[in-house]
This record gives sequence, structure tokens and C-alpha cells, in this order.
Amino acid sequence: MRTSIATVCLSGTLEEKMHACANAGFDGIEIFEQDLLVSPCSPGEIRSLAAELGLSLDLYQPFRDFEGVTEELLADNLYRAEAKFRLMNELGMDLMLLCSNVATAIHDDDDLAAAQLRQLGDLAAGYGIRIAYEALAWGRFVNDFEHAMRIVDLAAHPNIGTCLDSFHILSRGWDPAAIEKIPAEKIFFVQLADAPELSMDILSWSRHYRVFPGEGAWELDKFMGHLVRSGYNGPVSLEIFNDVFRQADEERTAVDAMRSLIWLEEQTSVHLQETDGPDATYVMELATLPQVAEPTGFNFAEVKAEDTEQVQQLLRQLGFAFRGRHRTKPVQLWTQGRARIIVNEQQARGLEPTIAALAFDVEDPLIAASRALQLKAEAVPRQSQANEAVLQAVKAPDSTEVFLCEATEDGTAAWTEEFVSDDAAGPGQELITRIDHVNLAQPWQHFDESVLFYESTLSLAPRPSTEVPSPVGLVRSQVMRTDDGQVRLALNIAPLVMERPGPSAASAYPQHIAFACSDVMTLARNAVAGGLEFLKIPANYYADLQARFRLEPEYLAALQELNLLYDRDEAGEFVHFYTATVGSVFFEVVERRHGYDGYGAPNAPVRLAAQYELAKRIRGTRLPSL
Amino acid sequence: MRTSIATVCLSGTLEEKMHACANAGFDGIEIFEQDLLVSPCSPGEIRSLAAELGLSLDLYQPFRDFEGVTEELLADNLYRAEAKFRLMNELGMDLMLLCSNVATAIHDDDDLAAAQLRQLGDLAAGYGIRIAYEALAWGRFVNDFEHAMRIVDLAAHPNIGTCLDSFHILSRGWDPAAIEKIPAEKIFFVQLADAPELSMDILSWSRHYRVFPGEGAWELDKFMGHLVRSGYNGPVSLEIFNDVFRQADEERTAVDAMRSLIWLEEQTSVHLQETDGPDATYVMELATLPQVAEPTGFNFAEVKAEDTEQVQQLLRQLGFAFRGRHRTKPVQLWTQGRARIIVNEQQARGLEPTIAALAFDVEDPLIAASRALQLKAEAVPRQSQANEAVLQAVKAPDSTEVFLCEATEDGTAAWTEEFVSDDAAGPGQELITRIDHVNLAQPWQHFDESVLFYESTLSLAPRPSTEVPSPVGLVRSQVMRTDDGQVRLALNIAPLVMERPGPSAASAYPQHIAFACSDVMTLARNAVAGGLEFLKIPANYYADLQARFRLEPEYLAALQELNLLYDRDEAGEFVHFYTATVGSVFFEVVERRHGYDGYGAPNAPVRLAAQYELAKRIRGTRLPSL
Repeated sequence: MRTSIATVCLSGTLEEKMHACANAGFDGIEIFEQDLLVSPCSPGEIRSLAAELGLSLDLYQPFRDFEGVTEELLADNLYRAEAKFRLMNELGMDLMLLCSNVATAIHDDDDLAAAQLRQLGDLAAGYGIRIAYEALAWGRFVNDFEHAMRIVDLAAHPNIGTCLDSFHILSRGWDPAAIEKIPAEKIFFVQLADAPELSMDILSWSRHYRVFPGEGAWELDKFMGHLVRSGYNGPVSLEIFNDVFRQADEERTAVDAMRSLIWLEEQTSVHLQETDGPDATYVMELATLPQVAEPTGFNFAEVKAEDTEQVQQLLRQLGFAFRGRHRTKPVQLWTQGRARIIVNEQQARGLEPTIAALAFDVEDPLIAASRALQLKAEAVPRQSQANEAVLQAVKAPDSTEVFLCEATEDGTAAWTEEFVSDDAAGPGQELITRIDHVNLAQPWQHFDESVLFYESTLSLAPRPSTEVPSPVGLVRSQVMRTDDGQVRLALNIAPLVMERPGPSAASAYPQHIAFACSDVMTLARNAVAGGLEFLKIPANYYADLQARFRLEPEYLAALQELNLLYDRDEAGEFVHFYTATVGSVFFEVVERRHGYDGYGAPNAPVRLAAQYELAKRIRGTRLPSL
Repeated sequence: MRTSIATVCLSGTLEEKMHACANAGFDGIEIFEQDLLVSPCSPGEIRSLAAELGLSLDLYQPFRDFEGVTEELLADNLYRAEAKFRLMNELGMDLMLLCSNVATAIHDDDDLAAAQLRQLGDLAAGYGIRIAYEALAWGRFVNDFEHAMRIVDLAAHPNIGTCLDSFHILSRGWDPAAIEKIPAEKIFFVQLADAPELSMDILSWSRHYRVFPGEGAWELDKFMGHLVRSGYNGPVSLEIFNDVFRQADEERTAVDAMRSLIWLEEQTSVHLQETDGPDATYVMELATLPQVAEPTGFNFAEVKAEDTEQVQQLLRQLGFAFRGRHRTKPVQLWTQGRARIIVNEQQARGLEPTIAALAFDVEDPLIAASRALQLKAEAVPRQSQANEAVLQAVKAPDSTEVFLCEATEDGTAAWTEEFVSDDAAGPGQELITRIDHVNLAQPWQHFDESVLFYESTLSLAPRPSTEVPSPVGLVRSQVMRTDDGQVRLALNIAPLVMERPGPSAASAYPQHIAFACSDVMTLARNAVAGGLEFLKIPANYYADLQARFRLEPEYLAALQELNLLYDRDEAGEFVHFYTATVGSVFFEVVERRHGYDGYGAPNAPVRLAAQYELAKRIRGTRLPSL
């Protein structure tokens, strides 16, 4: 599959965009006219740069408001088109996008539109140029790709074909199955965009909220399936208008974009195999990726700091046992049940405690790592001694290291043998059984990228996102998880709080590890005895709990005494507590009773407010504390 | 008019919110339940704090999903309500908001809903509490305020009344005139919100995009007119769910909120006088403000810096004449036509050139200043010598100083006599006639506040906002202007560009002063001769200009040679150029031909890209340069 991307997807100058596209591995680009217009580079210089970078210049776009007009305006439009054809000759380009008329069309007449397109085709032919006519979702008379195709048929000109854009088709609810009826040679170009399900006017939705395939709500593998079955074999190009991508670093956005196409290509291949059988063949060749199943659990989580004493103390107070020091590194292992925490003081000068790595149990770490690398994940360089386990690791978009470890039947991990101790404790009561979920704060620029990263590399599935009020703004939270709930990751975008004093947002937002527990009340009592500092929950919360759930007074009093939070739904109950924050890390202990499958969402604002109060008290400032 | 505000409008803890409301001058507050729930303060402590701050606790809110339910659920709901009534007694509160049921109602039966409300009324009466029933715009069976009122009538209980909310009424397009038919004693509470015209689902619109009155698109003075005519005399309260306000500093937001109510009160009074005549009387007393007409022009603009040499050079190259130094301060005056620029080196240690002040010609500076101060504008402390003009000045939300100066028939300004010089130049060619417009960058948190500030204090009217693409994101631009176009101010919100290196957004975005000119081509030629550094416009722009407008080749060549930009619309033509940026300031010279009334919007992306290139070249970084 040939990959392409419109320059409007990225920030920066045209030159910067082209370098980013080439670095990310795209075969070609669409030149968005505005980007050329404001560039100090001449068309010849852009042509040379593209050649040097190995990028084909696939599509010049957009040309607007051409057809369905008066004779007088048609003459102006042909003059305007010819100027662009000359420019395209200088650029060495041969395909132009024509959007259906939104402004100046006065005739709702397919024959007239076709006749005018035919004139354009004749003019274009003289310059060796072809025209791809596209139905915009908000076109005045033409807003349906089948309608655009009828006009192309009527025009019956070899230089006039169509351009299909998933946004314009799916946003209107048109059935993409009709793509299969279009002769492949008349599909001159294909643009892809995904989008979240939003109920707003289509133009605003299109101009601000498009995302890369896999980051939205649409089934683009099925869309691609229809396209592949049509026999199309041209470029598959991304055209994403997105307010965030326009601001973010273009090199990163281009990698995110490329990942989305690599993943979509694989998903399309899987979809076609499932629907058409393994023997079906198509003109377009679809590359695949090493297959991986969802991870079966968390293998470990790592907290890193210059000084980890406070982290060790919290773990001890939660009932974790010290399992030893690494043979060669300043790294400790703490465990309880199958929950393993690595406490790392390597190369951590000046670092406050932070979640540095997450490890997942996978069937085959080498295959999983290979898949991740093919999906443009950055490898984490690792130095292993001869007698050490070789662990596979890649970087997530927020720089968290993601380790891919071998799952074992009994839940053990071979690498733990590298940790030795004279004073290692034997197993204690082990009320904590495993890591329940991990909550990571994401910079606003990388949220969509992170969702796609975890979905494509680890097969975690995104759940509908929620919004939680905090004293410094709304926090958007997106859970990514496995079907069986053994791995749950919550990605949060924190508010911007630019007016608040303190360090930059990225480092100021605490993240946390939640442990599954078989008896949270006993564990909390033990922790009180051990001197644990709980996150203090206000009395007003318990009064409201009582109003909502009519709990037994003794039970309510016990919850309140231990700073436990409570939730209940049709399936079951959820009881949990939080520790105070150390650096940017805190811990949570949760007990899921019966089939409770959530995260105590109604309690999240209580936590955020309590952390805000705590940060204020400790630091004497109003540091964001999420 | 009694003023109130819901705590959900503001960021921070409940205590912080209450202090902010009291400091801004509100009479009372609505307690948003969640804010109390997450607060470590007991109800008694909140009650005491309110008394200490002089705030009445007007409304406890919201109570949800009560009516239209099964008998079994009704019992639960009454239990839940009673717990809240006890809490309200502790708080010393006597009014609760009940929202129409969105989730659990199963009976679309007004008699049943009324009977259930009557039971709630009986229970509430025992605690001395009244219930204000409100139709949410997305209520399951009740989403219209007249429908809610019919149920209140059917309930016929002294403790059951209604709450009117402008959002729920206007977002659905209900006619607010029907408010006049409601008996005043049955309107227990009134909530006001404004909103921009957005076409999206009402729930998202309501939860994220509400703004304070005057910051949106609705005619709230008319809404208030109906309310005042009904005989209502209770609190008028703001309930604004807004993602930005939730993040911004609560003290500032509270002042912005108070300003919106003071202004709305005046607008309502004006509206009622216009419609009902000057002799009409109402139960509610409406305060007014000193009246001001729109300003008749810019009196001056001030550029401030530690070293203003480069600014002086730019002015000289644009044909400005040096008019002298201030008698007592390191301040210079430069003029051309009626355009006056103050160049100020006072208290500017370390400051790069920046637009520090704008002055407007008004009929009566003292009255205008008094109005601004009553609208909560912060006065700028000024020290004047005995023989100096006393100038009135207040601070705009972005800290720009706004001077209010006396307009004169001949366009002169008395204060200029304080500037003396031995070497002052006589008037030159004077191609520049006046300041055409000024473009100020606004921090994203203060955009809505700025619009309201300029509208309420100076009577500038907002025009529909536009969005301009730049290499680092979309720039939202909002023009505020007088009817006659003598004063035009463009407020821009710049992108966040948090990933980009360099100083904070607020200081990194250039702002500019545009001068009106009678012959921009001659002026540009003179400026070339004088060595002015123009902002360089790329050749590709001129090729596109030619395709769009079919200009004469000689004229196009002249434009290109001089780096002039061009636009044309039905009314006329616009020709303009930009200087290079000095510090965070640059200048523009514009010639409006015939009735052209815009700002060359199609050229704005060209400018932004050229400034981005320039900043990259000069600083060797990719500093945002807007």
C-alpha cells in the first residue's frame, strides 16, 4: 500500500513538513496550497527537495468552487485553473483535487456540471494533468460520493476522475459499500480520516476534530476493505485537520500518522481475510505485522528517583516485601502476591519519584517487540550482562518505558532471580494480589497518539472517555484495557493551568499504581498500624455516601475512619483508598467485590480535591495536583 | 438587583471560591454540591465563612432525578432529599434546586410528577426549605420552562416553585416572553448564562461552552426585561459551566463575572426604558452606569522598552516626525497626521519593545473612567505634576493600559504640549493619517473577559470571530470596533505551542499597530529609500494573487517589489505592508480604497508564516512569532 499525507496535517513550514514526512517513512505527500503559498521556496526548489527526500508529490489541493456556475464565472475559473496547472508543471505534479462547489454554484444540474468538468479536463490534458473531483460533505448541490461519481461518469473524460475521502463519506452516513461499484481507474485518489463521534455541525467537526485512523470512532478497516475490493491501487493518504496536531511538533505527528496507516493496513488485511477468506486476492498488496494477543497481566511497574526511601516506606506500609537488590545495579525489587514493583535509583540525579516503566506479560516478547518497532515505536537501549535476562522495551509517547516480558503459567518472572538479598522477607499476609490498573498523565499534545500507540502495539482497547472535575479544571480520562480486565491503563489529560505557579504541567501531575486487594479493610487497618499516610477524605463525602447508598452506620463509620472510598453499581461494590503523594507518584489499593468493573469514577473528584488541598498544605502553593 | 453566582463557575476549593466571590462584590452564592462534598470544611464552617464574608447562601444545587418515578424509587429519593435537607439546615440554607428528571423518570404524567413534588414539598416544609423546580433542556419528559411551571401549578404547594435558567430556555429556542405570565412569587430563583452560537448537542454546549452575559450571542437584556416585568425581585445568579473558567484564576474570573452582571443590569435598564418608556416602574430596582458614547478615535498608542532606538528608527522610516521629549520623563512623542506614538523608556529595565498602552478619544474622560471603574476595571496609578494634564487610565485584562482622553474638534491633544524639543521636525509629507487598528494578543484564559471588558467599558462591538492558520496552529481573531470604524481593535488568541522552545506564550507573541495611509505605494517607496526592513513576502503569494485577481502585470510587479499585500472585495481594495518585528512589536501600513472595510484576512496566514521564518532566521529557534 502506497502511503501519503497532506501537508496540512502538520505544523511548521513546508520544508519542515516535508522533512518530517520523509523521516516518518511516507511514500508521498499532498501539497496543501496554502503551505506552498506562504513558503519562501520556489516551486522548483520544492520539486528538488521532494526528489532529494524520496517523496512523490501526489496531489495538489484544493481547487474550489469550479462547477455549476455561470458562463462568465466559468471563464474566470478556467483562468484560475490554468494558472495552477502551470504551477503544477513547475512542481512536476499531475493530479489536482477539485472539491464540489460550496459557494458559487447556482445550477443544480448534473449535465451542466459534467460539461464544465469536461472543459476543465480538456484544459488539464494540455498540461498533462488529471482532476480528482470530490464531494464535500457540505457541498452546495453535490455532497455524496455517488453523486460526484455520476457527474464524473457524465463528463466521460479521461482526465476527470474522483477522489474518495472517508470523512466526507462517513460523516454524512453514506454507505461506503458503494465504493466497490466504482471502476478502479476512475478513483484517482483516496484520503482517509478518522473522527470521534461528535454531534456538531459537519464543517466544524471536519476542520478541527479529525484524527488519524485508529484514534477515532470509525471502522476504517471496513472502509478500506471496500476500497481494496474495488481494485484501487493508488496512494492511501491522510488528510487530517486537527487543532492539536497543527500545534504539536511535526516530526512526532508524522510518526503518529505513519503508525496509523501501518496499523490500518494490517487491520484491513485481517478484515479482508475474515470476510473474503484467506484465498482472496486483490490488486493492492497489504503488508501485515507480527500478530500479538492482548497481554495477560502486568509483569511489573517501576518507580524511579534519586532517593527512593519514601517509596520503599509506602510499599512496606502497604504490606510489600523487600525481595532484594539487583546484582549489579542500584535497583530493588518489592513484591506482594503477583504485584512487583521495581524501585530504581539508576541515573536518577535530581529526579523526584516518578513512574518510569510498565511491563506487560506477553506470549512472545520478541514478536511483540518486533511488532512495536514496525509500528515506529522507539526502542529503549538496554545494556545486559551475559548472565542477565534480555528484556525488550520500547518508549510510549509520554516517554514511559514499556517492557514486554514473557508470561508464565505460575505468574513468576525469570528476571527476579537477578535480585539477591541476605535480609529478604518471606511472603507475608499478601492481601494484595496484583496490579489492578495504572493511571498515567498524558501531555495534551500526545493524547490521541498514546491511545493509538497502546491499541496498535499492545492490543489494548479504548473505552469511552470520561471527564472528571478537579479544582484546576476538567480532567479527561480514557481507559485502555484488555477484554478480561487483567490489564487496565487509564490515560488522563490534565488541565493546562498555565496561570498556576509551579513546574511545567508534564512533571506536576502525579500518576499512580493501583493494587488489587482481597480485603482492603484489613489491609487499611494494617497500614494505619504501620503509620501509612492516607489521602484524607473529607467528612462531607461520607454524609453524601450515606444519602446515596443508605449504608449501615457502623460500616460507614469504618469507611470514614480508614479514609476508604466506596462505590456500587448493578454488578457489585468497589472499596478503595489512596496514599499520600511522593514526588509525582501515589498508590491506590482497590477491592472489587462481585462483578464491579469500574474505577470508582464518582470518587475521582474527591481524590483530586484532596490532593489539591494536600499540595497546597505541603508546598504552600497551589500547585496542580492531579 | 441582587447578584449571586454558582460556585461551579470558578476554580479552586470552596473556600477559595467564596473569598473570590466576596472580593468581587457578589451578594450571595449558589453552593454546587460537588464543591461542598470534596471540601474539608464542615457545613458549619462554610456557614460561618459565608457570614464573615457577607455572602448569603442562596441556593443548594443540584438535586436530580426525583419525579416521575416508581413508588419504590420515590421512597429512596425522599430519603436522599431528607439527608440534604438536614445538611441545608446545618448550612443555614432554605432553597434547593431540583432539576427535571433526565434518567429515572418512567412516567410522562404531569399529575404524577406534581403529586410527587407535593410530597417533597411537605417533607421540605418540615425543614423550612423551598424547592425550585427547573426544566433542563435535555430533561426526559420535562424540558420546557412552561411545562415545568404547569407541574408547579398542579403541585400547588407553597414550598414548590420554579427556577428559570436562560441557558435551558434559549438553547431550546423557547420564547422567554412567556416568563411574564408566571406569578412572581412562584419564581423562586433565576440563573443566567450566555453562550456562543454553536451547533452541537445541547448537553456538551451547556457543560463546556457557557460564558458570562455579554460574552456570547444571546440577547440577555431582553430575557431580563421579561423577568423584571414579571415582578421578580430575587437574586439574579450566574451558572456558567466553562472549561476555561474552571482552569483560570478564580479571583479574576469572579471579577469578570461581576462585571458581566453590572453591565447586564445597565443594559436591561436601557432596554426597558426603550421598550416601556421612561415612566414604567418595576419591583426590581436596576442600577445604571455613567453613559458613554463609542470613542471617536485613537488618541495615541504607547510602545515601551528599555532601549527604544529600533522603534524610533522604524517610525522615522515610516515618515513619523519626532515631536520632542517629555519635560520630566524619558518619554518621546512621534507623530504623523493624527497618529501619535509615545515612545517610553520609563521603568522599563530589561523590557523588549512592547505595546504598553492605548488611548481613546472620548467625550468626557472623567465619566468614561468612572464607568470603567464601576465596571470593576483596575485603575492605573498615575503621578502627575502640577502643570501636567491629568490622564484617566485603567488596565485591560491583558494588562495593557487603556487611557481615556478628551476628544477635540481638530484632533489635537492638549497633553502634547508637555513634549518639548529643540530639534523637533516640522510636518513632512504625512501620508499616514491616523491609527487604523491595533492588534493585541490575548492569553487564552482571558479572551472572553477581554471581549466583555472592551464592550462594556468602551462600547466597542464584537464582530464574528475568525480563525487564521499559522505554522504553529490556528489563531482565533476577534475584531472589536466602533460603528464608524474610527476605532478598531483585533484581539487574537494565539496557539499554545507548549512544545516549542522559548519564553512563555504571553510575551512571545508580537502585537502590532496599523496606520491608515492615503498612498501606501509612495510611502513604501520612501521607506525603502530610508532603509526600512519590510516583512518579506514570498513570490508564491504573488503568483496566487495573479490567479485570483488577474491584476495588471506592472501593478503586480510593483506590489511584489515593495512586499505589499493586496486584497479586494465587493466594496473596494486593500493594500498594506508590514515591518520587521522589534521586541514584540511590529507596524503595519494600510490603504483602504473605496469602501473596503476588512483587514486583508486572506493575507494573515502569509504574514504569520513570514514572521515564523524571520524569527527562525534571527533567533535560530522556532519561536512562535505571531
